[in-house]
Parts: sequence; C-alpha cells; structure tokens
Amino acid sequence: MLQFIVETTDSSGARVGRVTVRGRSFETPAFMPVATLAAVKALTQEELSQLGAQVLLANAYHLYLRPGVGLIREAGGVGAFMRWPGATLTDSGGYQIFSLARRAGETPALPGKTRQSRAAASRARREAFSEREAVEAQREAESTGSLMEVNDEGVSFRSHIDGSEHFLTPESAIEIQHALGADIIMAFDQPVGYPADRARAEEATTRSDAWAERCLGAHEGRSDQALFGIVQGGFEGDLRAESARRLTARPFDGYAIGGLSVGEPKEETFRLLADTAPLLPPDRPRYLMGVGKPSDIVRAVLSGIDMFDCVLPTRVGRNGTAYTRQGKVILKNARYERDLRPLDPECDCCVCASYTRAYLRHLYKAGEISAARHVSYHNLHLYLRLMERIREAIREHRYGAFAEEFLDEGSDNG
Amino acid sequence: MLQFIVETTDSSGARVGRVTVRGRSFETPAFMPVATLAAVKALTQEELSQLGAQVLLANAYHLYLRPGVGLIREAGGVGAFMRWPGATLTDSGGYQIFSLARRAGETPALPGKTRQSRAAASRARREAFSEREAVEAQREAESTGSLMEVNDEGVSFRSHIDGSEHFLTPESAIEIQHALGADIIMAFDQPVGYPADRARAEEATTRSDAWAERCLGAHEGRSDQALFGIVQGGFEGDLRAESARRLTARPFDGYAIGGLSVGEPKEETFRLLADTAPLLPPDRPRYLMGVGKPSDIVRAVLSGIDMFDCVLPTRVGRNGTAYTRQGKVILKNARYERDLRPLDPECDCCVCASYTRAYLRHLYKAGEISAARHVSYHNLHLYLRLMERIREAIREHRYGAFAEEFLDEGSDNG
Repeated sequence: MLQFIVETTDSSGARVGRVTVRGRSFETPAFMPVATLAAVKALTQEELSQLGAQVLLANAYHLYLRPGVGLIREAGGVGAFMRWPGATLTDSGGYQIFSLARRAGETPALPGKTRQSRAAASRARREAFSEREAVEAQREAESTGSLMEVNDEGVSFRSHIDGSEHFLTPESAIEIQHALGADIIMAFDQPVGYPADRARAEEATTRSDAWAERCLGAHEGRSDQALFGIVQGGFEGDLRAESARRLTARPFDGYAIGGLSVGEPKEETFRLLADTAPLLPPDRPRYLMGVGKPSDIVRAVLSGIDMFDCVLPTRVGRNGTAYTRQGKVILKNARYERDLRPLDPECDCCVCASYTRAYLRHLYKAGEISAARHVSYHNLHLYLRLMERIREAIREHRYGAFAEEFLDEGSDNG
Repeated sequence: MLQFIVETTDSSGARVGRVTVRGRSFETPAFMPVATLAAVKALTQEELSQLGAQVLLANAYHLYLRPGVGLIREAGGVGAFMRWPGATLTDSGGYQIFSLARRAGETPALPGKTRQSRAAASRARREAFSEREAVEAQREAESTGSLMEVNDEGVSFRSHIDGSEHFLTPESAIEIQHALGADIIMAFDQPVGYPADRARAEEATTRSDAWAERCLGAHEGRSDQALFGIVQGGFEGDLRAESARRLTARPFDGYAIGGLSVGEPKEETFRLLADTAPLLPPDRPRYLMGVGKPSDIVRAVLSGIDMFDCVLPTRVGRNGTAYTRQGKVILKNARYERDLRPLDPECDCCVCASYTRAYLRHLYKAGEISAARHVSYHNLHLYLRLMERIREAIREHRYGAFAEEFLDEGSDNG
C-alpha cells in the first residue's frame, strides 16, 4: 500500500511530503523523468541516480507493444528490467492510445510511400535525433488526433510501430501494468483532446468513470502496487468537478489530473487546475500528468500538486535547447558559435562544470550523440534542482514568495 | 619533446613502455579511442576517464572543416576544447582527404537529389545511428576512392560537408595541427588505397617522403608538440623499406605505419608489417594507424607496435554489436530477445554489471540513444582491458603464449 506523509503545508497551498510504496520512496513535490521505453532518452540509469531522480515514469502502452510484457515480467518488472533502484510509475496507455495509435482498420502509412508522407518524414526528421526516432515521430505525427474504435467495453487500435491490431480494456490495461510491475500504476481512461465539444467531453468522462471502477475491480486483492485514478472532464469545470467527486468516492491510492496542457490556453489550464485540485483528498498524492515547463510546475505546486512528469527536459535537450536560469540557450543559434561559457554559469551540473556552449554547439551541429546526452543531462539537473528548491521553499514557509519571484523572471519563456 | 621509455621487451618482440609529451603520458602498447570531431561517439570524456583511456585521437581534417581551427585555438587546443585531461594526437588529414573529400570541381551530390543518391542514403541510413550521421556516411560513401587534385605542392579538395573548396599543403597541415594543439601531430602524407599499381604507389611514396621533409621544416623550432612521420609504400615491400629508411633518417619523434588494413588480405597486412616494423628505430614509438580488431592488435604487438587507433569498438557498438571474450554479440539477432545474461558474463564493466542482453537489444531495436552508449562503452572497456592484459603479459615475459592463446580463441571473428 502507498503511504503518503504530508510534512508541511505552506500558506500558499503548496505542500511537501513523501510517498512510499513497496519500500521505495520519493519526496514530493516530485518530478518524474520520462522513461517511455524503460530508458530516459540519452541518459543512463547511473546518471539518473547521480542527478537525484527518485521516481521514473514508463509507458505501459509502449512497453506492451515493445518489447512486450512477457520479457519484462520475466526480468522481474520494469524497475529490474532497466536496473532502476528507485520508484517507478507506469502510465496506463489511455493517453498514448488516443494520441499515438491509429484507427483500427486503417492501413499504416509507411514512410516514403507517398509524396505526402515523405514530406511528413522530412519534417519529423528535422526535429528528431535519430532515424528511428524520426520514423516513429512521423507515424505519431500522422496519427495524432485520429480516433480509435472505442466503445464502453474498451479500445481497439493499431500499433504505431507495425500496424498490428490490439484491443485493450480497463481490465487488460491493469493486468498489463501488474505484469510490468511498477510501484504505482494508473487507471485506464479516455482523455479528451483540445478543443472538445461538451458532448464528447461528457461521453469520455462518463466512460472514464465507469472504467475507473472496473480498474479498481481488476486491481482488487493486489495490495503491493498502488493504483491512481485520473480526473478527466475536458475543459468543462462542472464535468471535472463531477469526475473528481466520483473518483474520490473510490479508494484510489492517489489522484491524477489528466487531459490538461494538451493545447488549451495556459490560463484555462490553471483555472481548471485551481478549481479541481482542492476537490482531491488532501491525504492522497495529487499528480498533474504531462506538465510541464519549469514555470508550469512552480505554478501548479501552488494548487497543492505533488507529482509531475514531462518529456520536455529530454526532448528539447535532444534538439539542442537548454533551460537555464537566464532563459533558454538554443545551441543552433550562431550567437553561441564562439561562446566559451557553460550552458548556465549558475549551474553546478557536471556538463556546466566541463563543457562550453561552443563545444556543445559543435557537437550538436555535427550530430554527435553526446550533444543529446549533455543537454538532456543539464536540463534534468535543472528540473530536479528546481524540485529541491521548491521543497525547501515550502519547508521554510516562503513558497508564495519563491513562486512569485520565479514566475516574474519568466526564464523558460525565452 | 616526446619521451619514450621502453620498460620491457619480450622475447616475442613485443614491448611495454611509456610515452610522455608535455607532461601527459600514456602506457604502451596503447589503444587510442577515436574522437574524430573532438568527441568519442556516444561517450562522455568522464566515461573515457573511467574506462582508463589515456590518449585520444582526433582528426585534423574534420576539425579544420568543423568547427574550424580558430575556435579550437581560442579554447586552448583540442584537449581543452573537449575537456580531456589526458594526452591527445591529431591525424594530419592526409588519409581523410584522400578517402572522404571529393574531387575539386565536382558538384557535391546532395542527399535526395537523384534516385541514385536516395538509394545510397537509404543504405547509409540503415547502417548509421542518427540522421546526420547517415547523411555524412552517404556523402563519405559516395566520395570514397575518388582522387583529389594532387600535385607536388599539395592537395585541393572539396569538403564532404558543404562542398567548399580547400587546398592543403604539408606546411598548412602542420600549421593546422599547431593550432589544434594536440600533444602528438602527424606528418601530412598521400596514402595509397588497395589495390594500387606499383607506379601509383611509387609516386605517392616519393611525394609523401618529400612532404615529410617539408612537415619537419614547418615544425622546426616547435619543441612542445611531438611530430610523427608515416611510412607508406603501398603493398610493395621494397617501397615500404625505402620509405622507412628515408623517414628514419630524419628526426621524427615517432614513426607510424600508414596505408595498411585498407582492404588488402590480412596475411599481406601482417607480412608487410613484420617486414617494416623492424626497420623503425627501437627507441621511438611505433604507431600502426587505423588497426584494428582485437586479434589484429594482439598480432601487431608481436611486431613491436606501441600505438593503435581504430573506430571499430564505437562504430560497431553504435550498430548494436558487442565484442566479448566469447565472440560477437549482435543484438539485432532474435536469439538475444529473452537473454537475461549480460553482454559478456566475464566482463566487469558497468554495462555488464547492470544490463541484460534482452534489455540492450530492446533499446537497440527501439532506436534509443543509450543503446549506442552502452555497447560502445562495453566495447571500449574490452579494448582498454585488452591493452592492460597485453602490457601485463609483456611485463611477465609471456606475451608469445598470451598471443597464441588469444588468436586461437578467434573470438572477434564471430
């Protein structure tokens, strides 16, 4: 069972605490680096330990498709498979299926088959680091937004990798996550993209609520892994409140807020968040899924959020963009060509201790793999240090001032 | 000035010693990981230190074209630029110009411009890790073997990156290497590919000899960086002997054997090596350029070779092939799909201590950057441990038996 101890709640609403599951624990507010395929892109698990990561997120959807749950179960679960000694969480696959997989019955477009797909491949490649990453980015880009065949029973979809057909239900999504064996697993839901009309949001939310019940049923009797429910409701305040009300009436170990930061205006994100978060029980961890930029995290902590995950630090890192306390450093810019300063002169990470912007720019321009590693490392260091600073500010009851100052700087909007 | 101390010479002809230049030193026989663009592909300098690398090789040709010598000089030389605390050597660019650059006056083929170049790109991509690596591999593949405009003065060539025109002479090649500031720099020569008719080999060798003299002239008065001459002579024993005789009459700090292992039968390589190496002065380091597989190194040490470099451990590593003491592990093979053993059960590197073949195969199949890192790390560990075992065997006067046993195993021919 999951243990959650709230150590301090600041007058701003921010809180600091500790989550413990199966003997592994992490401090909150926590940032979970994203290890989609049981690896944080461009980094080793040793480096993640050095960086102070305490909990990683992996994706059940991706791991189910590749390498498959059988191998990971044999290896002792996703943590043992990837040799990660800290805590782990798997996302259920709901979000991934609805955003990445393709409509059942549709033939997957292979790259290079048509003029259009070649153009898409070219676009995707410019933004992707490796050829294989590019091919998948293209497939993902093409299929984003296409709906699966979904009914109350579950979702049928085609793999974004090989076009193979699959059918997932709340029960099988939980079963997969049992086999993957993460410490925390997520309910299987149907998220809503932006924009969404009310009817669609209502249908998806009602269905997600019924599925949440079935997930709990499928999880009954398993007391080792923790199960979180996910609040949906699109961009309708009353639907979100209703979703939160129904979910919190059930004995989930924690509560996530899903379907935000998917393209809606930032003010809407934070309005919905501020309205929803207080509806969640204060004695359970609150997890804001897929968020976000450093400033988003600082802001969301004000609503009492305890857990975050986001691909940004590693994704933009692979594309040669570093977050720094003075703003973004975009290495492809010519201004860094002879810049012999570190990425961030105020940073004490080993990348900033060793390498200059000019050297990192050179590696990036030359397509060296180590460029991706260095900038991803630095960015994760910045995120994980930010979480430390956040926790410290809350412990010292000065989080409101901390957040105000941080948000005034606007350093991640550069 | 370069100091070379031969500590022990074994009855087999193998010798163990130490090279010191500008306060940096490395034990011989030494393997130099290849940092073409001032980075060993997929590894950090911290990892290279952990692995016990003592000296790295960078390429003057590549660094001259990108990022250019100005930046590297400003940064304090290639070692400071890449923050490598150990010794460094730059290859002069002779080999790279003759194998990678394109004939002056020829328009560079841009990828995707013609059906033929698209096919070449596709081939190159299958073998390359990143898109950018693929584009360059294609250009390199297309231009390999095309001759530059070479005359006694120097070589004109077009960059394999952007098609820009350049003219290099022995003097400018040395000047570039002065600016790059490696501890050991190489004479600028004209290598001969395989097969080569005698007339061509003779012309290139005579020219290389004249250039060697001019390199020494350009280096006169610079007592900090060490300069090595390079024996050429194609595949003609008498030309190689003549080249060695003329070079060794000149005060080079060390002597390299170039133009071997470029496609000729292995027996020819080792026949020429065995004939040439004894002509080099025993009190100067002997460097066999671009060689090779572990078994090639073990064999060449029998001819008294002290220094090696080769892209193999990192290149095959990026392509998912691990050298092990039991033979090659080619991760794409289905047999490793559920193999929960480390790459090499006898290996004590941190990759083998942590990750299974099944996990690494999963990363490789999924195109994860960390697959390239892990296998490159393991392979370099194997190479650098092999050099330690070689030095130990020589110190203990049992190198003949060591080599015989190693070559009987044939573990790198799998």
